[in-house]
Amino acid sequence: MARIAVVAGDGIGPEVVGQARKVIDSVLPGVTATEYDLGAARYHRTGEVLPDSVLDELAGHDAILLGAVGDPTVPPGVLERGLLLKLRFAFDQYVNLRPSRLWPGVPGPLAAVKPGEVDLVVVREGTEGLYAGAGGSLHRGTPAEVATEESLNTRHGVERVIRDAFARARRRERRKVTLVHKTNVLTHAGSLWARAFEAVAAEHPDVATEYQHVDAAAMFLVTQPQRYDVVVTDNLFGDILTDIAAAVTGGIGLAASGCINPEGRYPSMFEPVHGSAPDIAGRGVADPVAAVLSAALLLDQLGHADAAARVTAAVATELAGRTPGAPLRTEEVGDRLAGYAVA
Amino acid sequence: MARIAVVAGDGIGPEVVGQARKVIDSVLPGVTATEYDLGAARYHRTGEVLPDSVLDELAGHDAILLGAVGDPTVPPGVLERGLLLKLRFAFDQYVNLRPSRLWPGVPGPLAAVKPGEVDLVVVREGTEGLYAGAGGSLHRGTPAEVATEESLNTRHGVERVIRDAFARARRRERRKVTLVHKTNVLTHAGSLWARAFEAVAAEHPDVATEYQHVDAAAMFLVTQPQRYDVVVTDNLFGDILTDIAAAVTGGIGLAASGCINPEGRYPSMFEPVHGSAPDIAGRGVADPVAAVLSAALLLDQLGHADAAARVTAAVATELAGRTPGAPLRTEEVGDRLAGYAVA
Ligand SMILES: CC(C)[C@H](C(=O)O)[C@@H](O)C(=O)O
Ligand SMILES: CC(C)[C@H](C(=O)O)[C@@H](O)C(=O)O
Repeated sequence: MARIAVVAGDGIGPEVVGQARKVIDSVLPGVTATEYDLGAARYHRTGEVLPDSVLDELAGHDAILLGAVGDPTVPPGVLERGLLLKLRFAFDQYVNLRPSRLWPGVPGPLAAVKPGEVDLVVVREGTEGLYAGAGGSLHRGTPAEVATEESLNTRHGVERVIRDAFARARRRERRKVTLVHKTNVLTHAGSLWARAFEAVAAEHPDVATEYQHVDAAAMFLVTQPQRYDVVVTDNLFGDILTDIAAAVTGGIGLAASGCINPEGRYPSMFEPVHGSAPDIAGRGVADPVAAVLSAALLLDQLGHADAAARVTAAVATELAGRTPGAPLRTEEVGDRLAGYAVA
Repeated sequence: MARIAVVAGDGIGPEVVGQARKVIDSVLPGVTATEYDLGAARYHRTGEVLPDSVLDELAGHDAILLGAVGDPTVPPGVLERGLLLKLRFAFDQYVNLRPSRLWPGVPGPLAAVKPGEVDLVVVREGTEGLYAGAGGSLHRGTPAEVATEESLNTRHGVERVIRDAFARARRRERRKVTLVHKTNVLTHAGSLWARAFEAVAAEHPDVATEYQHVDAAAMFLVTQPQRYDVVVTDNLFGDILTDIAAAVTGGIGLAASGCINPEGRYPSMFEPVHGSAPDIAGRGVADPVAAVLSAALLLDQLGHADAAARVTAAVATELAGRTPGAPLRTEEVGDRLAGYAVA
């Protein structure tokens, strides 16, 4: 039976992860969960972000379920680079998977888009690009200061994530992959991405393809999100585009994500896209749907497609029954979802 | 009297620029306009993108009015790097100014946002960042290929554009500047931007400030565009955010921009955000409003604030009178705008 590591984290993290675990237990009893105390609280208490010993222990699990880490009291970058990105890179989670659906019952912000019409997934590269941490500065704090950030891209890294996107497209109805980059300005990385995309596309004649510049894609995600099926893109572009996709489908309160190592050599990690939301933490009012949908991605990745489908169906039932604007209680939503999923 | 250079360019460029000139002539008779043939057509005919002699001639003008350059038949990057970006960099146009308003009469895509509620301006850095052209590749075309793109940021370049943003905020009602970056991942450049922002903010106690990560800003531009007044950001982030801002305010058909050298040492350049739209070129159906609003920015920059205000008011009248979805004729819109503006 699957052994998962749980990093509940900060703010609303523990509240929403609690519901995700409840739902997992209801559809797949017997999963072992080990809790790891990581995040802002631990950092403040011990100064530690992610000790090597913990990294080693995490590596021994089948998957990681993460709530949210971060707090305004921690300097920018410390937990992001030291924990989240460290895990993504150490565990070679090169597929950062972010599905977006406009669920029936959810009032999206776009007047012309009806529920059910948007169903896209962004396959964001997770281990390269501007996230590589290749940058520096000189003459810091003086008028002569210069700071650099370098985007590193390899054929190896780019091709494997594009392959994953095509494989996913093949399992979907529309079978379409959109490459998003900025080939007209980032000509070196853009050319690498475009050539790798063409090569993989040639092996998948049954999959339709298109290319868009990132600025155009950002616009079309607002004016015409229906047009997308699978979107494959670079790490930073994916970061931005998935927040737009979340916004047009009802907000990051519903957005799930998986940081996946498809070969299973390392554990994959599943987390809601939202942050720790310190403003509402501890009040039991956070929406656990994003965490629960992330748990569905986890189940799917571990080979429990049926259990995953039941969780997703439970979310659909829950959302269809909501009254827009009505207050919700985290625990109650979790109980309902667990009930729908087991039924 | 002002001497402007006109680069009508490709596709719908000449059609919309024709209307912009008509409107300029109506509010400020006597402006001298010299046409320069640059763009995809010239590139195909002569192989030239921007000869040095033309660059020198352009430098002798007070401003440049540009329609649109580009065509699918030209390889990515050739005109962008060789013409548009070359001009922005050669003429040190470090303020890339992109206002977005939801005009009364324009049906925006957001259900909850009413006309008049959105009035923001993005001050996008125009001469640094990932647009510097600092990148390369090794082992091209092999499985070992690596490609880099480097973002270059200087205190000099960052501070001056932030100063411009604060100066603009002071002239606006809400007096608020939002810095957008990704300080939690791009820690070197992000820190430089954040420190420069704090320093300039300290000199402007009458201006309210906030910071947002680019992914959050992309989301809030969709869910709550009303919250922004002046946004200052890096070159690439600005490229993406301004397309979102355009999308939520009725599309790039209405979006104007100025690439400004505030000191006037070099000519500033004004261009609609939209491209050459080869699909509708030559049919006289392109909306010239973005080009005409760009002309208003040009007039303002050259010190003709009254003329600029008349053009902007003419656009407001035009848009308020439109029936959503009704076809339009480029020439007729131009004639109406010229008429409203002169009256
Ligand atoms: C917190 C941050 C490092 C992270 C990212 O930029 O990837 C977040 O925005 C996300 O999208 O998961
Ligand atoms: C055409 C391209 C080089 C340009 C840019 O990226 O700046 C365009 O997208 C813009 O926003 O003006």
